[in-house]
Amino acid sequence: MVEESARDGTLDRLIRILGAFDADRPTLSVAALARRAAIPVPSAYRWVDRLTAAGLLERAEGGAVGPGMRLWELASRSSPGTSLRQAAMPYMDDVQAVLRQHTQIAVLDASGVLVLERLSARGAVPNQATIAGRMPTFTTSLGLVLLAFSRRHVTEAFLTDHADALGSPLRGIWHQGGNARNVVNPTEAELRTRLAEVRQQGFAAVDGQVDSEVTGVAVPVLSPEGQAIAALGVVVPLSSEFRPGLAPMLMAAARGISRALGPNGAMPPSDTVFPEHPPVTMPDART
Amino acid sequence: MVEESARDGTLDRLIRILGAFDADRPTLSVAALARRAAIPVPSAYRWVDRLTAAGLLERAEGGAVGPGMRLWELASRSSPGTSLRQAAMPYMDDVQAVLRQHTQIAVLDASGVLVLERLSARGAVPNQATIAGRMPTFTTSLGLVLLAFSRRHVTEAFLTDHADALGSPLRGIWHQGGNARNVVNPTEAELRTRLAEVRQQGFAAVDGQVDSEVTGVAVPVLSPEGQAIAALGVVVPLSSEFRPGLAPMLMAAARGISRALGPNGAMPPSDTVFPEHPPVTMPDART
Repeated sequence: MVEESARDGTLDRLIRILGAFDADRPTLSVAALARRAAIPVPSAYRWVDRLTAAGLLERAEGGAVGPGMRLWELASRSSPGTSLRQAAMPYMDDVQAVLRQHTQIAVLDASGVLVLERLSARGAVPNQATIAGRMPTFTTSLGLVLLAFSRRHVTEAFLTDHADALGSPLRGIWHQGGNARNVVNPTEAELRTRLAEVRQQGFAAVDGQVDSEVTGVAVPVLSPEGQAIAALGVVVPLSSEFRPGLAPMLMAAARGISRALGPNGAMPPSDTVFPEHPPVTMPDART
Repeated sequence: MVEESARDGTLDRLIRILGAFDADRPTLSVAALARRAAIPVPSAYRWVDRLTAAGLLERAEGGAVGPGMRLWELASRSSPGTSLRQAAMPYMDDVQAVLRQHTQIAVLDASGVLVLERLSARGAVPNQATIAGRMPTFTTSLGLVLLAFSRRHVTEAFLTDHADALGSPLRGIWHQGGNARNVVNPTEAELRTRLAEVRQQGFAAVDGQVDSEVTGVAVPVLSPEGQAIAALGVVVPLSSEFRPGLAPMLMAAARGISRALGPNGAMPPSDTVFPEHPPVTMPDART
């Protein structure tokens, strides 16, 4: 039993250690890592030795450490996100070749919008999305499309879990960016009206919410049952001549991605994202 | 001490479990996972429960499991590969917009060529590279460029470690692909001559080795010290009208990537890839 509990504690610590790094902190000193992972410093040193030897962390300049290439390799080569990304890439590339701005694909999980891939042209408008980064769910076209076209119980569970955020100002990094304005999340009633509109029109368009001067348009990549596997979106200047054509262009590309994924899709069904919720026998995400 | 050894065993098993999946086996039954990871089946069931609860694995159809999205998120959002990829992407996109075939970037580690990113157009020629996948080192333009422009002790260590492969037929998946021919690695003498040529001309071009009918051209993305941080390459039809211009085009793009990485680069120095080798005080990869 000692061994079992040590193992569970090990996994827990491992996840806290890996979770201590992000795009703003790609490397950390061992002391900073210990603090962020809530692990005693001597223990953090032993962990860093072990994880570095295993290739899961790598040493950087000045004694700092960061996630290792081997971790990325293990996580990426067979990830469901990689399959989706590979199916999507040729179609994203088609969109990007025409627009020369930002083309991105994202999925929804219990924490919100996770960006799987972003293609960006040089000189494109500002865009706060980063690969493997998070986006606000209630104020972005990607988030609205994912909520509108997920299975109903997934959407309802998400709204329940994030009820505190509705009607409140956006938190976190969206306030720190120089271009971000003071964005306030919609109330639940506003959001439900918005999601119904998005379901009705088949896409979401959000002008200059996270960044002014830009507009985001997104459409769902649908499973054969009509639920969102992912959202495909673009961010372009508000003044773009292509604006009226963005939604149909993206819908056509999203159909191609759905087809490339095949009938079974390459992603787990969205149920697995919220395993605590029972499966719905009659999914009807469009009502 | 029991706890320490349990932890080390835990990491070791964790790495074997994550390493059991690859692009051909994105999900495995628990029994198959146990076999590939060399773990007793009952133990594998307990591990799968723990790793699934932590989000590092996800359950798929029919009781199979695969790496989870959370693992990908943790590994990707702050990986050195992600930084390199982000610096490279606008330049890769420029190349891809012109060629509409395959544009890829790769790094060298102790196991060989690791593909960080691949942009592929719809209808492009066959290309066996996959993201987070491995490529042969001695017979591809990416591999030759990485060997030619790495620090000398890195190259020498790689040749020593892989001496058995030199002069022998390519092993592994490269024989299973329908388009792959029976490719034989160069002998050490042939390889050294080839690497000297590549250093001399500044790029590697390999016609139809892994796949016939296609040609690969790659150039190094150099650090300020003149060593390869990565290799930028394209795969195009042997008949492409652009062939004479590929090397200069890629060299210009690689300069842009080096500049975007900044003076310190975003990648660890190649020394960290072979930590067992002492640093070289007078690196001179071009002789």
